[in-house]
Amino acid sequence: MSGGDGYAAALAELAVGLGANVQPDQIVALTLEPGMEQLARAVAEAAYAHGARFVDLAVFDPYVKHSRLKHAPRETLSYVPPWIGERVLALGDARAANINLAGPSAPHLMADIDPERLGLDMLPRVRESGEIVAKRLVNWTIVPSPTPGWASIVFPDLDADAAVERLWEQVAHVCRLDEPDPAQAWTERMQRLGEVSAKLNALHLDALHFEGPGTDLTVGLLPGSRWISGRIATVDDVVHAANIPTEEVFTAPDPHRVDGTVTSTKPLFTASTVITGLRVRFEGGRAVEIEADQGAATLRTLTSHDEGACRLGEVALVDRESRIGKLGTVFYMTLLDENAASHIAFGRAIPDSVESDDLDRINLSDIHIDFMVGSDDVAVTGQRAGDERIPLLRGGVWQI
Amino acid sequence: MSGGDGYAAALAELAVGLGANVQPDQIVALTLEPGMEQLARAVAEAAYAHGARFVDLAVFDPYVKHSRLKHAPRETLSYVPPWIGERVLALGDARAANINLAGPSAPHLMADIDPERLGLDMLPRVRESGEIVAKRLVNWTIVPSPTPGWASIVFPDLDADAAVERLWEQVAHVCRLDEPDPAQAWTERMQRLGEVSAKLNALHLDALHFEGPGTDLTVGLLPGSRWISGRIATVDDVVHAANIPTEEVFTAPDPHRVDGTVTSTKPLFTASTVITGLRVRFEGGRAVEIEADQGAATLRTLTSHDEGACRLGEVALVDRESRIGKLGTVFYMTLLDENAASHIAFGRAIPDSVESDDLDRINLSDIHIDFMVGSDDVAVTGQRAGDERIPLLRGGVWQI
Repeated sequence: MSGGDGYAAALAELAVGLGANVQPDQIVALTLEPGMEQLARAVAEAAYAHGARFVDLAVFDPYVKHSRLKHAPRETLSYVPPWIGERVLALGDARAANINLAGPSAPHLMADIDPERLGLDMLPRVRESGEIVAKRLVNWTIVPSPTPGWASIVFPDLDADAAVERLWEQVAHVCRLDEPDPAQAWTERMQRLGEVSAKLNALHLDALHFEGPGTDLTVGLLPGSRWISGRIATVDDVVHAANIPTEEVFTAPDPHRVDGTVTSTKPLFTASTVITGLRVRFEGGRAVEIEADQGAATLRTLTSHDEGACRLGEVALVDRESRIGKLGTVFYMTLLDENAASHIAFGRAIPDSVESDDLDRINLSDIHIDFMVGSDDVAVTGQRAGDERIPLLRGGVWQI
Repeated sequence: MSGGDGYAAALAELAVGLGANVQPDQIVALTLEPGMEQLARAVAEAAYAHGARFVDLAVFDPYVKHSRLKHAPRETLSYVPPWIGERVLALGDARAANINLAGPSAPHLMADIDPERLGLDMLPRVRESGEIVAKRLVNWTIVPSPTPGWASIVFPDLDADAAVERLWEQVAHVCRLDEPDPAQAWTERMQRLGEVSAKLNALHLDALHFEGPGTDLTVGLLPGSRWISGRIATVDDVVHAANIPTEEVFTAPDPHRVDGTVTSTKPLFTASTVITGLRVRFEGGRAVEIEADQGAATLRTLTSHDEGACRLGEVALVDRESRIGKLGTVFYMTLLDENAASHIAFGRAIPDSVESDDLDRINLSDIHIDFMVGSDDVAVTGQRAGDERIPLLRGGVWQI
């Protein structure tokens, strides 16, 4: 299989089946960037073969955004035409499936843009996307989509074709497309993650403590914080896998009880910006200091977007069995990098990850930005009421 | 200039300036197919440089449509998600600019699809697009956008890169990008077309008679039929050029007074289908027989879409001074081919081309399909009340 030709069909089948779990007669919203047409067309073909009523494309072009950020008046940069959000709400009302193809297709494009301006334009993210996810109206999934631009930052020493080929190979591997039955392989992996979640839930933890180089962070949990894997369900009980690949168990923390300092263990790519060497200090849940070797200004703007943007909405644990972690590749792409290592996220929580009693206590920000805080050198310890400490991860290995 | 790199910026400037005439703080809807990103990004850059508030992309992928037509149940093929039309109406309410990049990017894609199924899915055309044009709410333009797929049918004997290069060269020539000041060149050309329109209006014609090989067609005009060039205005008096290039003068015929037989002088490409050797017989305005060497079934389905679909909404005259006609290239693309030769169109009329008294008599169909009926061998004669006959075009040369 070469250049994604065979991989695309297999990944598309996984995205439509196990991932979004597209239902007969369902509308499928398919989000992509230019350069992802090969996978997008394979997804559309698979969706219609699964009985979809209509596949509705939304193409986001970062080059068009770049022209906007270069020219448009500052006060217009957060403007979003109302029909973009209205479409998203209509997709929720229609109980549509959402499939997002992801990957930094133009990683260096925004290098010449003032980071503060960059942080004002949140597109392609819109508030309404978070709302329909929070209300569990859509069965959704995010899958990686290799492009030449993305491949160029992951494998800068390879020529363009070889880099794309290599990226597809690694994406295929971490998505388990090299298994005889990828969907079955994922079903088994998610059962295993479900078992870990059950053990964590049985511990009734009050907080997590991350300790490692540059990191001494306590993340408080809610009484109703529920550990889950990436397999979640809509209000209509359509079970879907929100990410492919997924290697994490995660829960919603208490947005008001996060304290200490954390150093990111991998770069992240958000709002078209690479952020490296990130260091954050939290007080009472708020990120009060954000420093980085690169990209700090953009992240500061993003985390001042709304009240919850500087507070956490997710804490996720990943062990060293993750195929992504084993590869050692930095993908500059959250979907993959977050599944290589334990991570936390600024912004909105996933409602499935909390009991209904505590739904009003979780983070409801419009943003959601994961960053990686785990590695084999970071010990993760659970804390229970009464200062009881329970080792969870040591050297990247589960202790429970 | 190579492969469109330089041409794209020049064509984009023409589309944004003279074409759509984008106003400061205006929203610009930009419609394209995959493969047209180079020109689309140049248009976005030019639009923002002209002060646009927001450029809103709508990407239509014919491959996704192909998957639908292959798999989806027949009864769902005319389904359109409501938000697609609602966005178009919102663009009208916002008095947006619309720029459409056009060209058959995948000309043979639908060859394996049942023509009757093909005719049921009208996308990317939606009813609402016709409505906002009819109400003159948006300043709009259509410009050609070369792609490898399109180039392959126009220059089948060239290799892929050479074909695209050649197509860009010819598109640049017919769009007058090789003039020192293309916008000025078009302003002058449209003034000349305006003068021809004025002469035709002064004749107060009752009908047109087309006579040539396989053609003996009388097209009745309304008392209020007004000859215009492609330069039209919105309700807010934003003057725009609806097509680049434009070589035609046209008017709205009487949808109930078209009789005789017409043979198309060039192939047309519509609904993803090449239609060649088209022959149509009209009675009392209705197309009662549609035959073709290729593609007749698709056109029959399209022209049965609604009451006006089998009646005319436009009659346009083009003289042999057209740069497109002079090239002799068949572009398989209406925007260019229609500006090579006199043509008529099934479906919706342009409201600017009739006096307000007769606005309720023009064709209001949801479709608009031009086909070419003129050549140097087709004589066009005006008829006035009392059987007076006035030669209009002979050998492709104006007689007035």
